[in-house]
Amino acid sequence: MSKLVRVAVDAMGGDHAPQAIVQGAVDALQMRNDLFIFLAGREEAIRTELAKYTYPAERVQIVPATEVIETGEPPVHAIRSKKDSSMVAALGLLRKGEADAFVSAGSTGAVLVGGQLFAGKLKGVERAPLAPLIPTAKGNALLIDCGANVDARPSHLVQFARMGSIYMESIMGVKSPRVALVNIGAEEEKGNALVKETYPLLKACKDIHFVGNIEARDIPAGQADVVVCEAFVGNVILKMYEGVGNAMIKKIKEGMMSSLRSKVGALLIKPALKATLKDFDVSQYGGAPLLGLKGLVVKSHGSSDANEIKNSILQCIQFKEQNISEKIKEHMNTEEER
Amino acid sequence: MSKLVRVAVDAMGGDHAPQAIVQGAVDALQMRNDLFIFLAGREEAIRTELAKYTYPAERVQIVPATEVIETGEPPVHAIRSKKDSSMVAALGLLRKGEADAFVSAGSTGAVLVGGQLFAGKLKGVERAPLAPLIPTAKGNALLIDCGANVDARPSHLVQFARMGSIYMESIMGVKSPRVALVNIGAEEEKGNALVKETYPLLKACKDIHFVGNIEARDIPAGQADVVVCEAFVGNVILKMYEGVGNAMIKKIKEGMMSSLRSKVGALLIKPALKATLKDFDVSQYGGAPLLGLKGLVVKSHGSSDANEIKNSILQCIQFKEQNISEKIKEHMNTEEER
Repeated sequence: MSKLVRVAVDAMGGDHAPQAIVQGAVDALQMRNDLFIFLAGREEAIRTELAKYTYPAERVQIVPATEVIETGEPPVHAIRSKKDSSMVAALGLLRKGEADAFVSAGSTGAVLVGGQLFAGKLKGVERAPLAPLIPTAKGNALLIDCGANVDARPSHLVQFARMGSIYMESIMGVKSPRVALVNIGAEEEKGNALVKETYPLLKACKDIHFVGNIEARDIPAGQADVVVCEAFVGNVILKMYEGVGNAMIKKIKEGMMSSLRSKVGALLIKPALKATLKDFDVSQYGGAPLLGLKGLVVKSHGSSDANEIKNSILQCIQFKEQNISEKIKEHMNTEEER
Repeated sequence: MSKLVRVAVDAMGGDHAPQAIVQGAVDALQMRNDLFIFLAGREEAIRTELAKYTYPAERVQIVPATEVIETGEPPVHAIRSKKDSSMVAALGLLRKGEADAFVSAGSTGAVLVGGQLFAGKLKGVERAPLAPLIPTAKGNALLIDCGANVDARPSHLVQFARMGSIYMESIMGVKSPRVALVNIGAEEEKGNALVKETYPLLKACKDIHFVGNIEARDIPAGQADVVVCEAFVGNVILKMYEGVGNAMIKKIKEGMMSSLRSKVGALLIKPALKATLKDFDVSQYGGAPLLGLKGLVVKSHGSSDANEIKNSILQCIQFKEQNISEKIKEHMNTEEER
């Protein structure tokens, strides 16, 4: 039993819960023999979903919880008051050490608050950033921070840069990942007070490969592997991906339907276009980790389907194998000793 | 003579200067009889370009200037030290009242510094925002501020909202334009200190149609006509348009070249796709005004071609006809009396 990676899944979180969540969990179990899954939520509903599949029952456990935290609820209040919610039940397992990782497609705010509260920050970590992978022309990059804790300090951004580097190197296999600071110009003297103060600190960091400032236009082009910014800016970047992408796709579709000639063309390019657009879908990577915590916390997209949930769960195995929390802990303590 | 709109053009600013600048000026002159253009820059070079066209010579005047401010130069130093530059020469005409408007495709930083220094801010205006039009699924929206003055205060954002409303109503003909504040969630209590303080101020504004917070993903969808944010965030939004757009187009082109079938399809949809992508090109609108100044200052895209320069110049006539500076002045003084 000790070699199993134990993932506590919030079975009620997300637009397609519990169907997509249970299906994703079953798919993950079928792919890996070293996986154990807790499904937290309404027992009846979960049983009904599970009954649809053949699965290794000895590696699944339902954790009954009657309440559900909704997306619109104020996070802190929701986490504190809904003690019998699927999210709090799953997070409880993480806190008690009965689970190694926690996955939820529920309220981002609640995952951020709950993750920090239940898993606890690693020694030396000032703030836990939410760090999704974003698509670029060259593959992908880690955007750190996209969380809910805005008004960051320079020391936070430096920690984001170091945690992001460890992630890209350990999990994504990028050697000496290029770290860049989001700014409104490439020159060192540009920017607001936060980035001006952060720049020299990053430059002085010996354990990261800092390549300087990056303008937002160069992020999708893939000019950095770790894109460092405070959460407000990170949120804008992430949502502009989605917004510009969707608006362009809509326009392209309208354009393709504008004449018979273009309609025929549209039919012919459809398969190629579909593959392309999938490449640029921010949600393709499954979950975004909340880094710097003692336990593994992964936030999956609210609209996650079974495939995304499966990927988020499988990601946890990799996190555990790579000992990502341990690596961050070591690095953060090195920093303190400098 | 008094009815002519007099535009001082920096003939040496931009990637395609002086060719594209002079050509755009000539095109504008041929479209409007009520236009007079000063072309500031190297006399020989401008004469050589002018010689290529037939144009109303009585409505053009060359203003000799030997220096050019380059994009990389620190703006304040450049404006102060290059007294004989095309930009300073053109701005000088605006200050002396010999020109009604100033257009440049040169260094954004230098235009912002020079514009404020030479044209001067209107009474009551705390900060002059750079406000480009951005494409949306429903047409376009004004993104205010995208300038170089970061770390804004709530009172600045309120002024941006009011100036932006006047612009969209007077110049773009949008009745009661919807004003929204860029935030990381739609709820009032979300965001950083700046937007939390700004929200109630905008809500209390009687002369604008405030519709609340807007998430970045809803900007390209066209959910607001005036998108209010501080300059750092505005810059990120503007450049994400460009970055995501370019990366997607590149991917789509690669996708279309991936098979014979898709290559044939690509040929068929090419005209329709081209029209679509033009719709989503941020640079299509010509220039972005620097609002809140006594004179009209328009920053044209650095890569402007003749068509964009022509549009930027023609825009000045509309600004002058609509008395945009006068309207902003009136509103800002109303605010002070409240």
